Amino acid sequence: VLVGISGGSDSVALTLLLLDLAEYNGFSVVSLAHLNHQLRLSAARDEAFCRELAARVGLPIAVEAVDVREYAAARRLSLEDAARRVRYAFLGRAAASAGATRVAVGHTEDDQAETFLLKLMRGAGLAGLGGIYPRRGLVIRPLLDVSREDLRAYLAARGETWVEDETNADVENPRNRVRHIVLPELDRTAGASTRPAIARAAALVREDGQWLDELSRERFEALAAITPAGLEIDATSLAAEPAPLVRRVLLEAMRQAADGREIGLDHIEAVLAVLDRSRGGVDVPGSRVELRRGKLVLVRQKGPSK
Amino acid sequence: VLVGISGGSDSVALTLLLLDLAEYNGFSVVSLAHLNHQLRLSAARDEAFCRELAARVGLPIAVEAVDVREYAAARRLSLEDAARRVRYAFLGRAAASAGATRVAVGHTEDDQAETFLLKLMRGAGLAGLGGIYPRRGLVIRPLLDVSREDLRAYLAARGETWVEDETNADVENPRNRVRHIVLPELDRTAGASTRPAIARAAALVREDGQWLDELSRERFEALAAITPAGLEIDATSLAAEPAPLVRRVLLEAMRQAADGREIGLDHIEAVLAVLDRSRGGVDVPGSRVELRRGKLVLVRQKGPSK
Repeated sequence: VLVGISGGSDSVALTLLLLDLAEYNGFSVVSLAHLNHQLRLSAARDEAFCRELAARVGLPIAVEAVDVREYAAARRLSLEDAARRVRYAFLGRAAASAGATRVAVGHTEDDQAETFLLKLMRGAGLAGLGGIYPRRGLVIRPLLDVSREDLRAYLAARGETWVEDETNADVENPRNRVRHIVLPELDRTAGASTRPAIARAAALVREDGQWLDELSRERFEALAAITPAGLEIDATSLAAEPAPLVRRVLLEAMRQAADGREIGLDHIEAVLAVLDRSRGGVDVPGSRVELRRGKLVLVRQKGPSK
Repeated sequence: VLVGISGGSDSVALTLLLLDLAEYNGFSVVSLAHLNHQLRLSAARDEAFCRELAARVGLPIAVEAVDVREYAAARRLSLEDAARRVRYAFLGRAAASAGATRVAVGHTEDDQAETFLLKLMRGAGLAGLGGIYPRRGLVIRPLLDVSREDLRAYLAARGETWVEDETNADVENPRNRVRHIVLPELDRTAGASTRPAIARAAALVREDGQWLDELSRERFEALAAITPAGLEIDATSLAAEPAPLVRRVLLEAMRQAADGREIGLDHIEAVLAVLDRSRGGVDVPGSRVELRRGKLVLVRQKGPSK
């Protein structure tokens, strides 16, 4: 296992917990990996903290510095989206060179609940509401059912420290507003922490979604034809399927050309409008969608697109 | 159509809109119906307001007074749950005696978003997250995609008034906290109203859920046997099904004895623990669930239960 570490409480606790668990559980932690985002004044301090921790626990640490702001600007991505892409690409490379078969990252129940609410208010659709996956490809998230509060209590009990991300206090950032204002208000309303219930809802949506995805994938393969221009789906056959399946087939079709950009509910609804002829055509990330002679056609667009 | 009316802005707008629409749309509004909950000091004022409106628009109005507090206490229900049951039972009777084939009620996009967040924080599971149904049995909710703000603007433009529910200001009430504190904070975070996105998420969860329910109903019929004591399900066959189906079969089984009481996620998880033998037995609303000789058995409990 390679552990991605920012220096914050979650990833420091993850590192120490995995080192403890490895002794008895037939796996080993081979390296840490820290990405210096160059976004904050404290980036150098965070990097130094992680290097010291690695030295103290006797692990190598891979460190890379990337100008995330520049990366985001060049690709017209949000800063959060850009940071996520750069981070996982780096962790994948670091895992390969360290010989790790898993990359552990420190997402907690708190992150899960925050992500759910952020996706909910942005209308991201059900794929988004499924939230953060406990496992996806190489990446594992062993702390996804654990609260940040418990992890900090664990670190405090061991006499360990961590670095505080000073941008956490910036309530202009939507995630911080959800963390510091919205979730505490929900907690006050419920009279208890609502994070476990929200994380559980995300897990249920994900579980239902995975089954529906499985049922839908087969239909996508049967309905969609790859053409030189892009992708074609017979409109009449598609419209005859149940609505949850139609949505998922359209999502899958759009993802093929989206190059990792997020396909939202608005995109799906726009294409549904093309399908039922209430709209002539629509641009979605990576493609132009039109109805041509009974076929829904997704024409791949060249160059940097919206 | 019979219209349920409280005297609040939503149901007043619903009444006037339906009367307008009826002229051109091949249906007619035959009566109003007002339930006096006897819960508030203003109950008599609300009833008088509704009677006056009915007289002014030339419609009969059915009025019934029920002591909801007593009804709730006798059946160990929450006040909100008791009020809901008493209201829909009354509306059903009123529709039958008025010869109405539909009962229209004034739930809005705001109610939908509030219900979603309340269910979310209470861990109600996916059936709850589906929120308020646009149509169920006789009941129709034509305003479920319309915001309260738009309805009030409509009433103001027509010079119409409504009664304010003074308990709306009581922030000890969870729904009011969600309405007046949590949702406005989410809106500030998103920079726009989040109610449309939340109502849309509820609709998607409902759509997915309805398809999964359909796929699961068939399995429930095949797996569950009604016995004199209650209900039996073969444990091995059930455990072999995909998780979303297992959850729904258990939900359906528990509902059979729950007499309308809500089955929550906690109940489903408790029975899952019985199914995988990590728990001996469990009491759920209306039944005792145990594993007996390879069968999951739900024994119906007599008398007022939890």
